[in-house]
Amino acid sequence: MSPITMTLVADDLIRQALREDITYEDVSTAAVCPGPRQATVDLIAKEDGVIAGLPIFERTFQLLDPGARVDARVADGDEVRTGQLLAEVSGDARALLSGERVALNYLQRMSGIATATRRVARVLASTGTRLVDTRKTCPNMRVFEREAVRAGGGGNHRYNLSSAVMLKDNHIDAAGGVAAAVRAARATAPFTCTIEVECETLDMVREAIQAGADIIMLDNMGREEMREAVAIVGGRALTEASGNMDEGRVREIADLGVDFISSGALTHSAGILDLSMKHLRLRDA
Amino acid sequence: MSPITMTLVADDLIRQALREDITYEDVSTAAVCPGPRQATVDLIAKEDGVIAGLPIFERTFQLLDPGARVDARVADGDEVRTGQLLAEVSGDARALLSGERVALNYLQRMSGIATATRRVARVLASTGTRLVDTRKTCPNMRVFEREAVRAGGGGNHRYNLSSAVMLKDNHIDAAGGVAAAVRAARATAPFTCTIEVECETLDMVREAIQAGADIIMLDNMGREEMREAVAIVGGRALTEASGNMDEGRVREIADLGVDFISSGALTHSAGILDLSMKHLRLRDA
Amino acid sequence: MSPITMTLVADDLIRQALREDITYEDVSTAAVCPGPRQATVDLIAKEDGVIAGLPIFERTFQLLDPGARVDARVADGDEVRTGQLLAEVSGDARALLSGERVALNYLQRMSGIATATRRVARVLASTGTRLVDTRKTCPNMRVFEREAVRAGGGGNHRYNLSSAVMLKDNHIDAAGGVAAAVRAARATAPFTCTIEVECETLDMVREAIQAGADIIMLDNMGREEMREAVAIVGGRALTEASGNMDEGRVREIADLGVDFISSGALTHSAGILDLSMKHLRLRDA
Amino acid sequence: MSPITMTLVADDLIRQALREDITYEDVSTAAVCPGPRQATVDLIAKEDGVIAGLPIFERTFQLLDPGARVDARVADGDEVRTGQLLAEVSGDARALLSGERVALNYLQRMSGIATATRRVARVLASTGTRLVDTRKTCPNMRVFEREAVRAGGGGNHRYNLSSAVMLKDNHIDAAGGVAAAVRAARATAPFTCTIEVECETLDMVREAIQAGADIIMLDNMGREEMREAVAIVGGRALTEASGNMDEGRVREIADLGVDFISSGALTHSAGILDLSMKHLRLRDA
Amino acid sequence: MSPITMTLVADDLIRQALREDITYEDVSTAAVCPGPRQATVDLIAKEDGVIAGLPIFERTFQLLDPGARVDARVADGDEVRTGQLLAEVSGDARALLSGERVALNYLQRMSGIATATRRVARVLASTGTRLVDTRKTCPNMRVFEREAVRAGGGGNHRYNLSSAVMLKDNHIDAAGGVAAAVRAARATAPFTCTIEVECETLDMVREAIQAGADIIMLDNMGREEMREAVAIVGGRALTEASGNMDEGRVREIADLGVDFISSGALTHSAGILDLSMKHLRLRDA
Amino acid sequence: MSPITMTLVADDLIRQALREDITYEDVSTAAVCPGPRQATVDLIAKEDGVIAGLPIFERTFQLLDPGARVDARVADGDEVRTGQLLAEVSGDARALLSGERVALNYLQRMSGIATATRRVARVLASTGTRLVDTRKTCPNMRVFEREAVRAGGGGNHRYNLSSAVMLKDNHIDAAGGVAAAVRAARATAPFTCTIEVECETLDMVREAIQAGADIIMLDNMGREEMREAVAIVGGRALTEASGNMDEGRVREIADLGVDFISSGALTHSAGILDLSMKHLRLRDA
Repeated sequence: MSPITMTLVADDLIRQALREDITYEDVSTAAVCPGPRQATVDLIAKEDGVIAGLPIFERTFQLLDPGARVDARVADGDEVRTGQLLAEVSGDARALLSGERVALNYLQRMSGIATATRRVARVLASTGTRLVDTRKTCPNMRVFEREAVRAGGGGNHRYNLSSAVMLKDNHIDAAGGVAAAVRAARATAPFTCTIEVECETLDMVREAIQAGADIIMLDNMGREEMREAVAIVGGRALTEASGNMDEGRVREIADLGVDFISSGALTHSAGILDLSMKHLRLRDA
Repeated sequence: MSPITMTLVADDLIRQALREDITYEDVSTAAVCPGPRQATVDLIAKEDGVIAGLPIFERTFQLLDPGARVDARVADGDEVRTGQLLAEVSGDARALLSGERVALNYLQRMSGIATATRRVARVLASTGTRLVDTRKTCPNMRVFEREAVRAGGGGNHRYNLSSAVMLKDNHIDAAGGVAAAVRAARATAPFTCTIEVECETLDMVREAIQAGADIIMLDNMGREEMREAVAIVGGRALTEASGNMDEGRVREIADLGVDFISSGALTHSAGILDLSMKHLRLRDA
Repeated sequence: MSPITMTLVADDLIRQALREDITYEDVSTAAVCPGPRQATVDLIAKEDGVIAGLPIFERTFQLLDPGARVDARVADGDEVRTGQLLAEVSGDARALLSGERVALNYLQRMSGIATATRRVARVLASTGTRLVDTRKTCPNMRVFEREAVRAGGGGNHRYNLSSAVMLKDNHIDAAGGVAAAVRAARATAPFTCTIEVECETLDMVREAIQAGADIIMLDNMGREEMREAVAIVGGRALTEASGNMDEGRVREIADLGVDFISSGALTHSAGILDLSMKHLRLRDA
Repeated sequence: MSPITMTLVADDLIRQALREDITYEDVSTAAVCPGPRQATVDLIAKEDGVIAGLPIFERTFQLLDPGARVDARVADGDEVRTGQLLAEVSGDARALLSGERVALNYLQRMSGIATATRRVARVLASTGTRLVDTRKTCPNMRVFEREAVRAGGGGNHRYNLSSAVMLKDNHIDAAGGVAAAVRAARATAPFTCTIEVECETLDMVREAIQAGADIIMLDNMGREEMREAVAIVGGRALTEASGNMDEGRVREIADLGVDFISSGALTHSAGILDLSMKHLRLRDA
Repeated sequence: MSPITMTLVADDLIRQALREDITYEDVSTAAVCPGPRQATVDLIAKEDGVIAGLPIFERTFQLLDPGARVDARVADGDEVRTGQLLAEVSGDARALLSGERVALNYLQRMSGIATATRRVARVLASTGTRLVDTRKTCPNMRVFEREAVRAGGGGNHRYNLSSAVMLKDNHIDAAGGVAAAVRAARATAPFTCTIEVECETLDMVREAIQAGADIIMLDNMGREEMREAVAIVGGRALTEASGNMDEGRVREIADLGVDFISSGALTHSAGILDLSMKHLRLRDA
Repeated sequence: MSPITMTLVADDLIRQALREDITYEDVSTAAVCPGPRQATVDLIAKEDGVIAGLPIFERTFQLLDPGARVDARVADGDEVRTGQLLAEVSGDARALLSGERVALNYLQRMSGIATATRRVARVLASTGTRLVDTRKTCPNMRVFEREAVRAGGGGNHRYNLSSAVMLKDNHIDAAGGVAAAVRAARATAPFTCTIEVECETLDMVREAIQAGADIIMLDNMGREEMREAVAIVGGRALTEASGNMDEGRVREIADLGVDFISSGALTHSAGILDLSMKHLRLRDA
């Protein structure tokens, strides 16, 4: 994550998460650590997987103690093993104790997403097809979850509803057809916006291509239908396959030549990667 | 969710999520719906599970169109079946189209948590033991995820680090022992705070009881050790069993008489419940 | 402006502008209007031009008095004449008096931009070339200024640095050439982003086309060079002409077949359209 | 601008402007500068004028990279010439590239205002009359625009509606006359507030003086009427001449002995001063 | 309080106070009132005094339940007696219970200030001297406390450091004397600002008058010194007496003809007026 | 105050208070200190009392000038004497002048509360009874006022409505009795919450004990009734005595063995401790 994104976007979200966890004081830490005391604690993997979010993890502690440091043995995108020491975190013991849960909540979730992404992306490794995410992210977590997908080896779809045009069935109905919808989008959206059309049938694919769509989404199509759709498109637009794209489904269509496969599950159902902070060492006061 | 929590806490988070998804305009909807137009759309279950978050789902649309309404056929906590019509959503078509993703992102995640909670809570139905959540929630989602746990039949643990004292190994080390840690907490925390001690051994259980802890956490103990721990406590404190409490583990210890079983997985690894908004009907203009 | 943009984006900015103008109270109005009193006041044009921002004008008063109403005789995009009655504004006299300046500051600036845009856009009326804005907007005014450009008959360029890729000389230098820059952008930016390359020479145009750029900016080129550039592009990308595009320059290149002409002056140097609120009538108490 | 104003007021506005321009990431810069790299770039004048806003320009980069520095060859209020090197900006190349537009949007607008102010203020140089601004500023830009007016050699009018009393025709009507309006203001406004009355006729001037107004605004009066008004006031109040005060008008009334001439055009219609950032030099990594 | 001040300033502060008191839910009320239920409760005086803040009191409940209403039997500024029924508050029982403390914290503090102000202001009733407040207000309470002073019969001093110039010993030292300080203020502050000089000796009074100060503060002077100071000023400036202005001191100098007496104690040491909410009646469900 | 509470909670409140006092600039200081200049000023007690809030006092200046330092001769909780030099404050003269009032407003109020608390707490010194605060704090000041109570020798009650259950008459009525209210709270509140019941009679004490309340509040009971209540409770719950607990009342019941005595007056009616900043020394430029 670039320091600019960290400053303009992530910092406020992390601080908000810290405030969610601390109304006014961590009453446990206040009791046992009434004053400043330097300490170090280990970050350890309790599961195999791909790590993502170390800069967020470090930033969480730094927002509580600007002097806190994470001495990391791995980097975002690295595969880690159960029991592996991933980093040593040093700083004011109060920051380490009070920031632990929020820091881990980010790191575990991002690593869970990276792990799930890696598993699927690997299937596409030798193909020209790229795995991408969707807008099915946890509210107020998008910037982190997209970063995690990249760490896992995936790419990103449009950031949000303002970034690009995506015309789904409801939009097409409202416009009165694919051609009308694409025409309306060309006329009103910033000219830098690409226009994608979600197609459920080959007829829609043809219509969308004819209307000049930039990207054709092949939504929930079977393998054969998808193969045909790619042929119809014939390079006149980018293609994106979508619809319950788990490892099995992806393997099944990996050779069809679609440009992108998008999967909501990468972000909405990955589950966390289990990590833990252990062995706090207080330095002699 | 009480209207007070909605107003003071949830509204700002939902609005923030909407802004995450809309930088300045939904360029697709702006193209196809240039003006106001009333519409109705269906909310349908695509999986079996427990629904949670309908008030949040409705509120998301209302924050975009105060006149939007959700005519719900089910209520939070109800079990739903694949294909079931859960609600009809009516309002300005632009609000329905632009709010859909954020509304579903909340509802699907909350329902996923409720579903996972119900599955485990059911095991404890006839016992005196209650399933509760943890602080392993997604950042800036806690108020929603705890609500989902309740909808699923669970209860809530402390809200955050300011709500109650929980003394873990690192706190105990910093204080110089269980007794010292409990004493420090009694002296400094508000007297209304309960004090819980995380115990990994029976000796710690004895120490914590002697120190006057209000709640004893039995952390990652085996069945027999846990049984013994409950006997040692002998009703002098509440007991909470913790540590990878999946359905199997819970079933295994359901008859031991612990007061609470806490599970992080309810919130950190539930995965979503698949739902979808379909069949947008525009009313004649 | 869609009600969604109003709610999620504009409202907070308008409220902020009102707070900029009212630290705690309008001391003049508080003195002469100690209590509620309904009133009506006229909005009058003091110059010929194109009106833009009436919904923002109305919203400003409504944020102070939810019952305030603007009974408009014209709509955004209409041409108005010196002395013309544009609207009657009704509501609590205190809201009318205290909100007047902020409401006019928005309306006059937006109308100034619309007027400048109309003047230039008219030159392109019968051509296939479209006039668009730039990011040279007043800080924290972008959403309003882009709306004003549209009201004047222009279109919008990318919203901001996150919306699309634009590779300028500095980016190209940093990447080590046009091809490398485009390649890097394709590899890292969301696949829905279009890539534009700012070209100062015909060689750069050739390079950019070869690298697969989606949009070619012809930056500060003379008429003949631009004609040649359009020929080189040959429809393989969109073209955008840029560089001090005042009315004269635009007229000069209107027939060259570029797709877009962008002009920073539309927003950064338009000056306001002079409007005034006159003839406050207090209703009998 | 004092560091206190910067910290309490300007920083948040600049950060907001940066977020307006960067939803989550500058996708162009992220592509070509994936990591930190020190660079220097030149700030050059493309027009003659007066510079204003250099501290804001520098701060914009520092909010993205605390180590960024502007090595300025000129200071606010200095006159600059086309082609002149005004400053070298050094820092992380990503901050230089991503902050350029916002930094320039502030600097160019403030310099445009300073330039316009200087042009008019010069006319009053050898007189006792001072040029001042108005509240006709761009929403959420007031603190910057007033600073620019001072850099150009002007002074400031009241900050906002809470700073001082200004009784216009509508206020006077609501109160039932000049005397009643002034009396009401004395009775209710903080006693530290000065009271100004906007007068369109000599009779109103007499009334306002008699009522004890502190400042008399001579609104849209002709030269002779204004001369007479100044005589009527006779030093018993400050006088302010207002109404389309362009260079010509100001020259015309410069010798009449009014204390202040206020001009909305300084801020609402100045247009920018054209500046540019050129010649990015990346330091060897 | 005008609805404009309420909307732009007070609402956010009240909401913030509610959030200070409710992290996520009122756990007591949630337990006993799980659903909506209309109720009415009485507001009763437990002490004699002057009431102030009823609109804030009502607004607090309305921010939790837009349908809540306060049926007030008294108005701000009225004197109330122990045991008197001041108002009936009706609305959702949950809003009444959860908002009670914050609503009373505002009302009691404002009424305490009004009561203290009335006591002192009464001493000045038949004189030309007016009692005013200072900036010694509780942080983030100024807009409420100044309102309370007015309800008690006092007037307001400058709102804050941006409203008017006040030159104290430290400013005068920094400028190098009274004359230099006043000159600097005239040159740099907006010309609408009045300039007050804090004078500890008669010599300073003379200097300040000569320098053209608008207001002379007589700081901690004895009765005779103050009388002489007023004579020296001789109507050429307003005078303000300051320094531990309790009832006794005020009585002592009430006949000296100073224009204003300012007292920090009105806001910083008034203590609350004891009020209570009693007799909640739930309407039959 | 821990640096974590300072960062997450206090900083924003202090900054908000500074903005309340500075709309855009301190016009007095800007006039006399146009540029940076180091200075030192003394903090002096003008009354005997207990000091509290020195870290907040220092932080206020540091938020305006990160280099500002308070060289304190006393610490929070210390008793100070009239005329005593408490600290020297050094930094940019502009920060010292512009921050003085806000810094003192915090320090004086917190010290006033600490002083009042010390006076009452001393009465309980040799008893097992502890003095605690209530929620009768000034809006948006709670975190500071509770800190002041601790500095004075008191303890803290529940932070807010989300921290613990307190069942008052209105809650009990709504639930249909003490037992039902306690049962409802046990069923719905987080299991870590203690439950307190406000009892006005001995019968209620008995009911509350039987219902399993954790804390029994003895509300406005006479000495003998309170003695009996303590006997009834018999150690089965904590006891809290409440109701106009001034020094006299506290002395009267100090030997009864209640666990806690709570007093709203500590925070709502303490009045400030008079302090002053004097003798600004500017360092030679």
